[in-house]
Amino acid sequence: MVKKVKAALIIIGDEILSGRTHDANLNYLAKWAGGMGIVLDEVRVIPDIAERIQVAVNECRNTFDYVFTTGGIGPTHDDITSENVARAFGVDLLLHDEARGLLEESLGTKDLSEARLRMAMIPDGAELIKNPVSGAPGFMLGNVFVLAGIPVVMQSMLLDVENKVSGGSKVVSKSIHVFEGESHFAAILTEVEDTFEHLTIGSYPFYKAGSYGASFVVRSPIENDVDKAIELLGQKIKDRGSEFFDGEAPE
Amino acid sequence: MVKKVKAALIIIGDEILSGRTHDANLNYLAKWAGGMGIVLDEVRVIPDIAERIQVAVNECRNTFDYVFTTGGIGPTHDDITSENVARAFGVDLLLHDEARGLLEESLGTKDLSEARLRMAMIPDGAELIKNPVSGAPGFMLGNVFVLAGIPVVMQSMLLDVENKVSGGSKVVSKSIHVFEGESHFAAILTEVEDTFEHLTIGSYPFYKAGSYGASFVVRSPIENDVDKAIELLGQKIKDRGSEFFDGEAPE
Repeated sequence: MVKKVKAALIIIGDEILSGRTHDANLNYLAKWAGGMGIVLDEVRVIPDIAERIQVAVNECRNTFDYVFTTGGIGPTHDDITSENVARAFGVDLLLHDEARGLLEESLGTKDLSEARLRMAMIPDGAELIKNPVSGAPGFMLGNVFVLAGIPVVMQSMLLDVENKVSGGSKVVSKSIHVFEGESHFAAILTEVEDTFEHLTIGSYPFYKAGSYGASFVVRSPIENDVDKAIELLGQKIKDRGSEFFDGEAPE
Repeated sequence: MVKKVKAALIIIGDEILSGRTHDANLNYLAKWAGGMGIVLDEVRVIPDIAERIQVAVNECRNTFDYVFTTGGIGPTHDDITSENVARAFGVDLLLHDEARGLLEESLGTKDLSEARLRMAMIPDGAELIKNPVSGAPGFMLGNVFVLAGIPVVMQSMLLDVENKVSGGSKVVSKSIHVFEGESHFAAILTEVEDTFEHLTIGSYPFYKAGSYGASFVVRSPIENDVDKAIELLGQKIKDRGSEFFDGEAPE
């Protein structure tokens, strides 16, 4: 039985949309989710605007099994994620004693400034997500996981998220490559893909050091089907007089 | 008068969501749009699924001035963007003579395979977007620009898109930096931001070689306001006994 668990990622931040900052969280989280048996099924990048955050959170939490957000949980005026996740759920944003304690511990102070206290304001009913890097926690509310935007912090929070999610069937992926244009193989790819349920084949052209070709990536939650499809694909490539290569994909 | 022109980017491709491929188009297109006076206001990354493409295209084209899509216009079975943009608009997908000519020219053949002919199938009423890199064109239909997913090809297509869009007011951006935690400046940032209409200040913490600090990025379509806000912000930072630095942001 194939069990699909699907997630959305909401990246919150003007700095990504203006091009000032390169997002590094999408790719990391995509691979992490794959390893957990969670299919990342949509990503949205939205600005630091209250209503946009609320709408995106509510649309995604009603559509996907899990929702991850990154960004906007720091101490300054443009950090408005927590309050708008609270609003999306219709709950209050409260000073959270445990979060306050974590901040005081990490900052080595018994007297937090008003700005830093913002980072201890957590929606009512949420469960904290540990931040071993810089103390200020994320949180889980319903099926929504609110994480930091700074990649090293976001990555450290995922370690704690692993205790809070249940993945489905893991997708297995294998690929073979040809050094000819992908268009020659279009019919073959369709045939092989149509032979197996739950199986997809992606075709990704590459140009590398003067030679070009394509990688065919076969993916399915049923590992045996992936092996059979790779074999069938290889046979069909040979049958038309072409060669294929396996191993690491050319970039 | 400030004129805002807003755009959405739809990145179509399983390979981005699985983590196999790092997207490189978001950041490039964000900066390009900024230079054109277009605010990139939302990005969605969606899988190669017909209905998902149609829904995203229709939601975005009704909400934003311009919509850009990347990916899914190659010759293989997983390249389904063109047919689903056509469906989203309720128009037919037709063999386009000029597109066919461009492909024949670029591939040096008078006899295109069925797979390659897919790349000359263009929605009825669309205008071609030139692809100086590999021939196969993108297209513009209404306010939607359908571009290739391979970064170098996408970038070359934007040169032609520049002739087809009208930007609004360009956003000017200047920044100053401090080598203290951003939380100390939270109140100042709010005050300065609230002094000017259309002006936003982003606060971005950094950690670099053992020292940490924050960059404050002031953005507005009114350049004079940006200068005045930077001056006011600098004064307020000095008033609290801190130092600031301008120039390039630490990464």
